[in-house]
Amino acid sequence: MKSAILTVGTEILFGSILNTNAQYLSEQLRLIGHDVMYHFTVGDNPGRLKDLLAYAYHDCDLVITTGGLGPTEDDLTKEMIASYFGETIVEFPEQTKILKEHFEKRHSVFTENNLKQACFPEHAQILENPNGTAPGFLLEQDGKMIVSMPGPPREMKPMFENLVKPELLRRADAVIYYRNLRTTEIGESRLETELMDLIDGQTDPTLATYAGEGECTLRIASKRKTRAEAIDAVDDMMMQVLERVGNYVFSVDDEDLEDVVLDRLHMDMISLAAAESITGGMFAARVTDKPGVSAFFDRSCVTYSNRAKMELLGVYKSTLDKYGAISPECAAEMAEGLHKKSKCDLCVAVTGNAGPNPDEGKEVGRYYIGVWYKGEVTVSEHFRQGDRGRIRRDACFNMFKQIYKVLFNKSLT
Amino acid sequence: MKSAILTVGTEILFGSILNTNAQYLSEQLRLIGHDVMYHFTVGDNPGRLKDLLAYAYHDCDLVITTGGLGPTEDDLTKEMIASYFGETIVEFPEQTKILKEHFEKRHSVFTENNLKQACFPEHAQILENPNGTAPGFLLEQDGKMIVSMPGPPREMKPMFENLVKPELLRRADAVIYYRNLRTTEIGESRLETELMDLIDGQTDPTLATYAGEGECTLRIASKRKTRAEAIDAVDDMMMQVLERVGNYVFSVDDEDLEDVVLDRLHMDMISLAAAESITGGMFAARVTDKPGVSAFFDRSCVTYSNRAKMELLGVYKSTLDKYGAISPECAAEMAEGLHKKSKCDLCVAVTGNAGPNPDEGKEVGRYYIGVWYKGEVTVSEHFRQGDRGRIRRDACFNMFKQIYKVLFNKSLT
Repeated sequence: MKSAILTVGTEILFGSILNTNAQYLSEQLRLIGHDVMYHFTVGDNPGRLKDLLAYAYHDCDLVITTGGLGPTEDDLTKEMIASYFGETIVEFPEQTKILKEHFEKRHSVFTENNLKQACFPEHAQILENPNGTAPGFLLEQDGKMIVSMPGPPREMKPMFENLVKPELLRRADAVIYYRNLRTTEIGESRLETELMDLIDGQTDPTLATYAGEGECTLRIASKRKTRAEAIDAVDDMMMQVLERVGNYVFSVDDEDLEDVVLDRLHMDMISLAAAESITGGMFAARVTDKPGVSAFFDRSCVTYSNRAKMELLGVYKSTLDKYGAISPECAAEMAEGLHKKSKCDLCVAVTGNAGPNPDEGKEVGRYYIGVWYKGEVTVSEHFRQGDRGRIRRDACFNMFKQIYKVLFNKSLT
Repeated sequence: MKSAILTVGTEILFGSILNTNAQYLSEQLRLIGHDVMYHFTVGDNPGRLKDLLAYAYHDCDLVITTGGLGPTEDDLTKEMIASYFGETIVEFPEQTKILKEHFEKRHSVFTENNLKQACFPEHAQILENPNGTAPGFLLEQDGKMIVSMPGPPREMKPMFENLVKPELLRRADAVIYYRNLRTTEIGESRLETELMDLIDGQTDPTLATYAGEGECTLRIASKRKTRAEAIDAVDDMMMQVLERVGNYVFSVDDEDLEDVVLDRLHMDMISLAAAESITGGMFAARVTDKPGVSAFFDRSCVTYSNRAKMELLGVYKSTLDKYGAISPECAAEMAEGLHKKSKCDLCVAVTGNAGPNPDEGKEVGRYYIGVWYKGEVTVSEHFRQGDRGRIRRDACFNMFKQIYKVLFNKSLT
């Protein structure tokens, strides 16, 4: 189905907020086989809004709008849609009831302008909004379909996921099923080369590669009459892919590398500690983003100064004097010292230069990671071009990757 | 001037990337007095692209496009603009020379399709691109203006800032000057009340408030014939504002609170250490985002476990047993202990529950911040509703705010 996304909101045209709705909806629609032809953004202006609707239906069968469903006079999306489809706006008593209950529960005063949120085009199918006061709606006429949802993402996303997507899938003549295989330590071009005949020879399932930071995703997708058929086709292809490049695949379920690592630590109750210099706490912040990590995550020593490296990790002054803080020797001592102090099962340490200037004669982007595990320390050397943020993110990602290699006993490439 | 932003790119319609260009340009245009009427996004399709151009010029005098200027056959923005304006595409020899030099410098092979990037509508004014191979261009005809720039933000933004903005300002009949005053500890509605007569009574300069996370921005803007007049008007109004709410203003130059705090620590060479539980390293990561902080930032102890709190900070077991880790008593001992161990001038500590479940009987969102400075510990209690990420970001922001209060000797609200 050809689709257009129309976001209504002055604050988007002002540049005050990013239009994340358009991205979210585009991705969701693509995954269920829709072609998104346009994004439009317009302010709360009745004429322009109605003109754009007409413009969109020239090419598209489905228009999805977000925003402009609120109680104020500015909110005109509903009125313009009704006008375009030649519908009358009427009050839906059931919605009035829900709305009034909502206000009562919060001990808020129900002002008359709120009634607007219980009124819809007469043939609209209401989309309930458990996360706000403005419900959405769906309307079909002569093969044209409109879906209208509130603007705030935390209201719009669950509405799309729970109510709109099932409706769209019900109308689809085929089912799309896909799996994302995540790989690391293999470049996109080599991955393509290894799978060339599978990529070129197939019309369904299709294989596509997407390069990301330090990794590459392989999407296997199938569009069939039934879901069971599509799953079979995808899983069959996955087996062929795994036979060739399985060693580089860290997840067949679209998990992030860090989640794979943290899940394994948690499952096996391997206690974790970190010592961070160049990443300055980013690694620990990523780990503790996840709830429940206190079961195995003990600490991170963000030792930015040399004094802190000596006091908290027992790095020798002689090491710092001889090799400097940005050295494999220091990374190794940080990891070992961290184990001695924390007694944790797995200790990861990182030290390096994120720039913008060379430091201790080490170029910007050079860093070292040490991992202590089962009595042994592995040190790896890394280099990343780019700005400070990019280098630090890269170092953080590679800490997870080094732990992954040690835990899963991988010596890739 | 009425403007439209047209972004060209299949990857945006796919939902693979966020349309940050539209936001950036909208904000920039607004700040120099343009009204942005539309955002359009379309793929590399010649017909749809040309139709949208015509549609935009119905309402607008200026259309800014990004994307679709590359060397491949897909890249059609230039051709469609030329076609709309009835221009011929011709080679600009100076651009061919620059392009070939660029390739030589990189030892890359110059393939024929690259010549496309040296061709433009005959009356185009070229916008040089020092950050990529595709230059942009500007074209004017019968009071309609088009600006066409490459898609990658790191090429587009400097091109807009250095080449396009001056052209737009040169054409403007008035100059806009504005200042953002950043405030904290005063809500948007109270801020508006305090300044009500100034907000309502004035047509120029205008005052507008914008609520952010834990803070509120006050923008004072003036549109005058000359820059000097506009600056005078804004600064005069700023004085009146500062007289009334100056105590809540932490920056008159649109700086973030954390930058104000870190700059002061750096300037006065006040050494800083942190002890983080609920934020798990986020505070340190924010601090070390900035280059040069090693001059005063010593360490952060991310003490996630109780054992780490005792070992690294000297928190007493009896305190943890009696009050729990999520308590003002623990926050105070963390800050004090951190000072004893690190000898740093300012020591900040945080402990709390980010959820998703209650912990030690403390509700999700409750946290405590302790600040040790000049021999005294100040502990503050906080509560934030929301998900884990929001609570942690709030705690991180409030660590900076508590340091701000201590450093600048503010007792706000």
